[in-house]
Amino acid sequence: MVHFKIQLKQILAIVFLLTSLSSIAQPSERDTYKEEAPKYIFYFIGDGMGLSHTNAAEAYLGTLEGLSGIKRLQLSSLPNQGFYTTYALDRFITDSAAAGTALATGEKTTVNTISMDGDRLVPLKTIAEMAKEKGYKVGIVSSVSIDHATPATFYAHQPTRNMYYNISLDLSKSGFNYFAGGGFKHPEGDAKTSEKNSLSNFGMGADDEIEEKETNSMKIAEQRGYTFVTTLNDFEKLKKGDDKIIAIAPKLGGGSALPYSIDQENGADISLADFTAKGIDILDNPNGFFMMVEGGKIDWASHANDAATVIKEVLQFDNAVAKAIEFYKQHPSETLILVAGDHETGGLAMGFSGSHYDSSFGLLQYQNISYEAFSDKIARYKEKHPKNYDIADGLEMVKAHFGLGDASKELQLSPFEMQQLKDAFVKSMTYEAKMTKNDQFYLLYGSYDPFTVTACHILSQKAGIGWTSYSHTASPIPVRSIGVGAQLFTGYFDNTDLPKNLMKIIENK
Amino acid sequence: MVHFKIQLKQILAIVFLLTSLSSIAQPSERDTYKEEAPKYIFYFIGDGMGLSHTNAAEAYLGTLEGLSGIKRLQLSSLPNQGFYTTYALDRFITDSAAAGTALATGEKTTVNTISMDGDRLVPLKTIAEMAKEKGYKVGIVSSVSIDHATPATFYAHQPTRNMYYNISLDLSKSGFNYFAGGGFKHPEGDAKTSEKNSLSNFGMGADDEIEEKETNSMKIAEQRGYTFVTTLNDFEKLKKGDDKIIAIAPKLGGGSALPYSIDQENGADISLADFTAKGIDILDNPNGFFMMVEGGKIDWASHANDAATVIKEVLQFDNAVAKAIEFYKQHPSETLILVAGDHETGGLAMGFSGSHYDSSFGLLQYQNISYEAFSDKIARYKEKHPKNYDIADGLEMVKAHFGLGDASKELQLSPFEMQQLKDAFVKSMTYEAKMTKNDQFYLLYGSYDPFTVTACHILSQKAGIGWTSYSHTASPIPVRSIGVGAQLFTGYFDNTDLPKNLMKIIENK
Repeated sequence: MVHFKIQLKQILAIVFLLTSLSSIAQPSERDTYKEEAPKYIFYFIGDGMGLSHTNAAEAYLGTLEGLSGIKRLQLSSLPNQGFYTTYALDRFITDSAAAGTALATGEKTTVNTISMDGDRLVPLKTIAEMAKEKGYKVGIVSSVSIDHATPATFYAHQPTRNMYYNISLDLSKSGFNYFAGGGFKHPEGDAKTSEKNSLSNFGMGADDEIEEKETNSMKIAEQRGYTFVTTLNDFEKLKKGDDKIIAIAPKLGGGSALPYSIDQENGADISLADFTAKGIDILDNPNGFFMMVEGGKIDWASHANDAATVIKEVLQFDNAVAKAIEFYKQHPSETLILVAGDHETGGLAMGFSGSHYDSSFGLLQYQNISYEAFSDKIARYKEKHPKNYDIADGLEMVKAHFGLGDASKELQLSPFEMQQLKDAFVKSMTYEAKMTKNDQFYLLYGSYDPFTVTACHILSQKAGIGWTSYSHTASPIPVRSIGVGAQLFTGYFDNTDLPKNLMKIIENK
Repeated sequence: MVHFKIQLKQILAIVFLLTSLSSIAQPSERDTYKEEAPKYIFYFIGDGMGLSHTNAAEAYLGTLEGLSGIKRLQLSSLPNQGFYTTYALDRFITDSAAAGTALATGEKTTVNTISMDGDRLVPLKTIAEMAKEKGYKVGIVSSVSIDHATPATFYAHQPTRNMYYNISLDLSKSGFNYFAGGGFKHPEGDAKTSEKNSLSNFGMGADDEIEEKETNSMKIAEQRGYTFVTTLNDFEKLKKGDDKIIAIAPKLGGGSALPYSIDQENGADISLADFTAKGIDILDNPNGFFMMVEGGKIDWASHANDAATVIKEVLQFDNAVAKAIEFYKQHPSETLILVAGDHETGGLAMGFSGSHYDSSFGLLQYQNISYEAFSDKIARYKEKHPKNYDIADGLEMVKAHFGLGDASKELQLSPFEMQQLKDAFVKSMTYEAKMTKNDQFYLLYGSYDPFTVTACHILSQKAGIGWTSYSHTASPIPVRSIGVGAQLFTGYFDNTDLPKNLMKIIENK
C-alpha cells in the first residue's frame, strides 16, 4: 500500500511538471500575473448553463416587467466576461465529469472520469485541494447530490462518476470544511458504485481502519469528524467557525437533489442561495475561503427540454450568485467571483421554426410544476387507469399545470398541437419509453414520459423557444467574473485555462 | 423642401441630445475613455453569425486535421471578447435592418427600418457618416447586394429595407469612397422599392436635378462621380488613391450577391477577402479609413439550415478578417479591428437529439454544393419530369452532392432517414411549398424546397448539428476585438453600445 502511494505521488509530480511546462509554453497574461492572492474565492458553476439559458431567464424577467428587452440577472452584471471551449479528451461533446475535471484541475480527461487522467490511472490535483493547502477553508455546495459529478471533481479521484460510494468516501477524506446541498446517493455502496480499482485513497492520508470496521459512508464521515445537519432548525443555528459540516436539504427530490425551484413550497426548503449564504458565515476566517457552488438542476431540466423549470433554476442559481456579490461589495479588494458553466444542455435557442420571429416568454409563467413532478402525476394516473385512460383527463392535467388549452391565457391549442398531445398521451399510457438511436420515437420524446415532454415542447415552442437535443451540446460557455484577478478570465480560451488561471492567482498566497 | 430639411435637422438635434444624455447617464468605461482615435478602423459584421456558427467552423477544421478539439479561426484569436443583446424596439427577435441600425447608429429601432427612429420619421446619424466628417475615408463591403439591409444601415436612411431603389440613391449620395461586393438589386426602381415617403434626401446636399433627368440609380451614381468596376481585370488594376469606386463581383448569385463559397470555382471569382484587401489598398491615406465588411450569406445559409454552406461562408468571412489582422500587425498602435454579428440565425447547436453525444463534423466535407444550387437542380429536374419523376434519381442526386447514402463515406441512410427523403421528394415534385404557421409542413421544410432542406437536415444531423428555426433567434452575439480602444468591447452589453463606444473612440480625432 505504501509502495502504491509513492508511485502515485511520483506520477503526480510528472503530471504537475507537464502541466506547468505547458503553462509556460502558452503565452498569456497568466504568465505575467503577479497580484496578491484574493482572500475570498467564489467559483459558481451552472451545470448545463449556456449563453441562451441565462438570456432566456433575462428575457422572461423582462417580459414579466413589460420591458421590450431583457432584465439583467445579477450574474450578468459582473463586468468581465469571456467564454471557453468544453470538449473532452475522447468526445467533442463533453459530460459533467470530464467538464468538471477540466474546471477543477485544468486538465482534459475522458468522459465519466472524476479528476483523473484520461487513462484513469493518475489522480489530478484540484483547485480546491490546492486552496486547502494554501490555508483557505473550503466549501463545496450543490443543488444536486453532493457526490454528483460536478462537485465530486473538486474533492474525489475516481475512474467513473457512477462510483458514488467511493466518491462519498473521498468526500470525508478531503477534510474540506463545508459540504452543502443535496445528499449522498449511495452511502451503503454496491458493486456498481464501489469498484475495486478505485483510487480513493490517493494522497488523503491513511485512515483505512475506519473503512474496515464501518461500511456506511455517512457514518464513516461522522467518524472522520463531520457533522450532518439535516433539519432547517439545525441549519439555521450553524454559525461562523463551525467546521466539518455536511448540510443536507431537509426535503430531497429525485436523485437526492434539492427539489426543483418550481416545485418548492415558498420558504419551506433551504435554497441554494441559503446554502451559499451559510457557507460565507461558516467559512469566513482570517485565512480566507474557497467555495464552489453548483446549480446542478439547470442541466437536468434542460435534458428534459423543460424551459420554465430551466428558467426557475437559473433564477435560483442567480440568487446564490447575488449572495456572493453582496459579500463582494463589502470586500471588493479581497474577493474574486467567477460564474462559469460546464457545458450547454439541450441546444436551447430563443427562436423556434413554428413561431417564426415571435416570442412570448411570459407564457412560461403558467407552468406551475416541473417535468419531473408532472411525469409522476402521469405515472400515478396510468397505474389507476390501466385500461380506461381518457385523453380528456390528460388534457385537463396539461391545462392545470402548463396552461395549455386555456384560451384566457392565450394558450389555445392548434389542431396539430392537439394531435401531438393525443398521440403522446396514448404512448404514455401504452408504451414503455425506450431509448432507440435515430428512431422517430426518440426524436419526439427522448427517454422521457411522452406526454410530459410533449407538453414541455409545446409550451416552449409557444413561448418561442426551441431545443435540438436531449443531451449536451458543444457550445462554448460564458464565464463572468469580478474582483482580484478577474482580468484573466476574459477572451476566448479553453475550459482547462480557467483553473490554471485560478491556480496562478492563489500561487503566491 | 428647404423647410422640410430644417425640421429634420431640428429633430435630429434633439435625437442627438437625448442620445448623448443617455450616454452620460450610463456609468461605463466609455465615459472616461480618452485615448487618441485610431487611424484605421475595421468593423466586420457576420450576418446571422452566433457563437455556435464560429465554433462549428472551428470544430470542422479541427476534425479535418485530426484534432480532438477545435482549430481556431483567425477571428477567435483576437484577445478581447464581449457579447451583447440584439432585441429590436418592437420585437425581441430582431432583423438585419433593426440590428444593423443598432450597430451603425447606436439606437434601437423597429424591424425593417434602415437607420431611422422607430417611428420611421427621424434619420439617425451613422458611425460611417461620422467617420467621414472626421476625415476618414470610408469603405462599405458586403458579400450580398451592396444595397442590402446591413450595408445600407451605414449609409442610407429609409423607412423600410425593401426600398432598394431609394437605398441605392442614398448610396451614391453618401460620398463614401469605396463600395464593394454584390450589386444593386433594383437600379431601375419600382413602386415597392421607392415609396414616396422616402427621406433619402436627408442631409446629403441637394442634387435632385440629377434624379429628375435620370432614373437608373447606377447611372445616377456615375453622374455623381462614382466608377463601377465589374471585371476581374479592372478590379486588379485598382490602386491606392482611386476614389469613389463601386466594385461589383463579376459573377453574381441569387439576390445580386456573391456566389456561395461552396459553389465558387477556385480563383474564378473575387472573394470577400479580396474586396477587403483591395479596400485597404484604395482607402489607405494620411487621414486613415473606416471600413465595414459584412459576411452576409452566413445568414442566408443558416435560414436554410445548410450547415456545410454556413461553415464555408464563416471560413470565407474569416479570410477577410485575416486581411485586417495582417494589416493590424503592421500598424498595431493605430488600428482597431472589431468582429461582430447582427443576430443569430437558425438556432444552430452542436448537438442533435438523434446523434445523442456524438459528433462527426468531417461528414460535412462531402457536401459540394449549396442548398441554393441544389434547389435549382431539383427545380430543373421537376420541369423535365413533370409526371415521371423517380425517387431513384433524387437519391442519386443527394448521393452525388451530399454524400448521403454512400457507405464508403459512412453516410448510410437509416430506414427513417430514407423515408424522410422519399416523403420530401414527393412533396418537391408535387406540392407548391407554402409558408403556413404552426403547420407540420412548415416545421419540416420551412419555405424551402422540401427535398433540399431535408438533405441539409439529415447531413447536419449526422454531423451532430441541430437547428431550431428557419428564422433568427435572440441569442446574444459575441464581438471580438483588438487594437486602440478594444477594451471598450468586453463584457456583456447591448448592441447599441457598440457604435456608441466607437463614436466615443473617434470623437477626439
